[in-house]
Amino acid sequence: MEDKTIRLQLSETKKEKPNSDQLIFGRAFTDHMFVMDYSDPLGWHNASIVPYQPLMIDPSSMIFHYGQSVFEGLKAFRTEDGDVQLFRPEKNLERLNRSSDRLCIPPIDEEFGLKAIKQLVAMDKDWVPDADGTSLYIRPFIISTEPYLGVAPSRNYKFIVILSPVGAYYKEGINPVKIAVENKYVRAVKGGTGEAKTGGNYAASLKAQEDVAKGGFAQVLWLDGVEQKYIEEVGSMNVFFKINGEVVTPKLNGSILAGITRDSVIELLKHWNIPVSERRISMDELYQAHQEGLLEEAFGSGTAAVISPIAQLSWEGKDMVINGGKTGEVSQKVYDTITGIQYGKLEDPFNWIEKVEAKSAVKQ
Amino acid sequence: MEDKTIRLQLSETKKEKPNSDQLIFGRAFTDHMFVMDYSDPLGWHNASIVPYQPLMIDPSSMIFHYGQSVFEGLKAFRTEDGDVQLFRPEKNLERLNRSSDRLCIPPIDEEFGLKAIKQLVAMDKDWVPDADGTSLYIRPFIISTEPYLGVAPSRNYKFIVILSPVGAYYKEGINPVKIAVENKYVRAVKGGTGEAKTGGNYAASLKAQEDVAKGGFAQVLWLDGVEQKYIEEVGSMNVFFKINGEVVTPKLNGSILAGITRDSVIELLKHWNIPVSERRISMDELYQAHQEGLLEEAFGSGTAAVISPIAQLSWEGKDMVINGGKTGEVSQKVYDTITGIQYGKLEDPFNWIEKVEAKSAVKQ
Repeated sequence: MEDKTIRLQLSETKKEKPNSDQLIFGRAFTDHMFVMDYSDPLGWHNASIVPYQPLMIDPSSMIFHYGQSVFEGLKAFRTEDGDVQLFRPEKNLERLNRSSDRLCIPPIDEEFGLKAIKQLVAMDKDWVPDADGTSLYIRPFIISTEPYLGVAPSRNYKFIVILSPVGAYYKEGINPVKIAVENKYVRAVKGGTGEAKTGGNYAASLKAQEDVAKGGFAQVLWLDGVEQKYIEEVGSMNVFFKINGEVVTPKLNGSILAGITRDSVIELLKHWNIPVSERRISMDELYQAHQEGLLEEAFGSGTAAVISPIAQLSWEGKDMVINGGKTGEVSQKVYDTITGIQYGKLEDPFNWIEKVEAKSAVKQ
Repeated sequence: MEDKTIRLQLSETKKEKPNSDQLIFGRAFTDHMFVMDYSDPLGWHNASIVPYQPLMIDPSSMIFHYGQSVFEGLKAFRTEDGDVQLFRPEKNLERLNRSSDRLCIPPIDEEFGLKAIKQLVAMDKDWVPDADGTSLYIRPFIISTEPYLGVAPSRNYKFIVILSPVGAYYKEGINPVKIAVENKYVRAVKGGTGEAKTGGNYAASLKAQEDVAKGGFAQVLWLDGVEQKYIEEVGSMNVFFKINGEVVTPKLNGSILAGITRDSVIELLKHWNIPVSERRISMDELYQAHQEGLLEEAFGSGTAAVISPIAQLSWEGKDMVINGGKTGEVSQKVYDTITGIQYGKLEDPFNWIEKVEAKSAVKQ
């Protein structure tokens, strides 16, 4: 990156903002977006904040054919003081570059990427909602744009950041869900792209999700692609189990996404001296623990829900009800602590918060 | 599909056509494209042939984030009589719908899709080159266009067909290549999307390809994702081995693409009474056959090259030179026959050819 200035082109009109209590995830977008181009001799260049607008892309562009793309997801939170703040955003930029490496996409300057995100959020800060549990979802992504049908890494890319105000994930308190263990479809396998945040992983997951939804399940629990025996993730979240006092989560193995909420949960548990281990865990082991009354809690972790308790796991015709279908104590404590830090209601002993700008006067 | 008319909007300017001897795969595109939209209540609608032009797509459109897309690739050939003809195009439309099913994309009417392709090719028939080995590459594809960041099947799609004149794959005769057996990365796994022609599979393949290119290899030979032991595909082609007089190709198992050239090769071999079997084949077996002098030929099959002979396979530090690095007799015969049928130089006993329109007067 030679030129690190961000050109500004302000939107001439302001869109109407949705009401804080009617926000739907990922449907409304703010007035501006950040765009930066990559081309082979120039590297990343032409960083700009421009009015939110459609992209003009050639139909032969690689993104439409060979799926070379990566993305991230994080949130900006409004505190009671009116500050706008991010949660561990540098981790998202680190992971974006790790994903890019797997997909043969050139890395971005992480510091500059964070600066761009902060500047964009600051510009559209009126869009950060202030109702309980609401936030501004930030979606950085990179797409391959070279107009060429050869199967090869693209020589042109766009790095784009768009913003979407989102409602509370839990409207009436944290809500445990029913999950089906997936035995037919596989999300990812060792040697594949499972640890990268790339479109193909999500495209591959739709069919299983569609199938289990018919049975009234909220998500699938993914097993490993080799033996279809070991637990990997739940839906698009990482997964944790409290077994006989110890919290267990599948070890990162190349096919599991390294969740930032996952990492935060582990740090918190260690901080509280709650035993936590990252290791391989099979459905057989989990089922046995449940039969012995030792499976005390289960929850997913991710940016959208923070913590999503699992009320019931269905596996090979067997229904495992967990903690009477209610949110467990550790699940609730982790949820309350992470959201408390995110909204500035609790202290931040881990230095997880990055202010966008202090004391913004404008509120919704 | 209620409305099956195709609206026409002719291009006001005609682009300059590249010279037949300077055609590069997938870089130049013709004057027109076919576009059809899908939306939830309407189904597929608004079928149009329009001037080739950039797409205007919202940055939140699902294709940029979750990779829900499928594509096909086939060719139009110009015969010595000036006819323009397609090779088994109905197979491409069948496979497109099978891919779509895996990706939760609504099917298109295959007959109508073929009609659209033929009409588009007829309109741009001047772009079908006539130099030896050249053709017009046809790329139908479907992308998810709903402007929504939720992980769910899109409710909007575009089916698009673009055309690109392509040069001879082999400029100086059929050319055997060196292939590296891939032991680290995996293309696809049982339960994944390997048998679908979707972007994510190609994105996943780039890193391995980039790594082996440094060692002077043209492609990788993919092994299965479970045991990394059984042979699946070569690069983006299917693969065949002639072992002790019998031609063997990996059996379709859910992670291997059902190639149309693959199917044609099998039909031809049967027609010629050459023993052919579709079965699981391991690298151990192949290596042993090579050691015993029984590995007589190896070749990839696909739309781009038709047949790509393998001169050498490198596996775990061992180099297996096949047929002295030269094109084998069966490989050559299959290549000559399929290309002969495609260009109308040989009879078509299998009814593989579909004329676009007869005796077009205009030639390049």
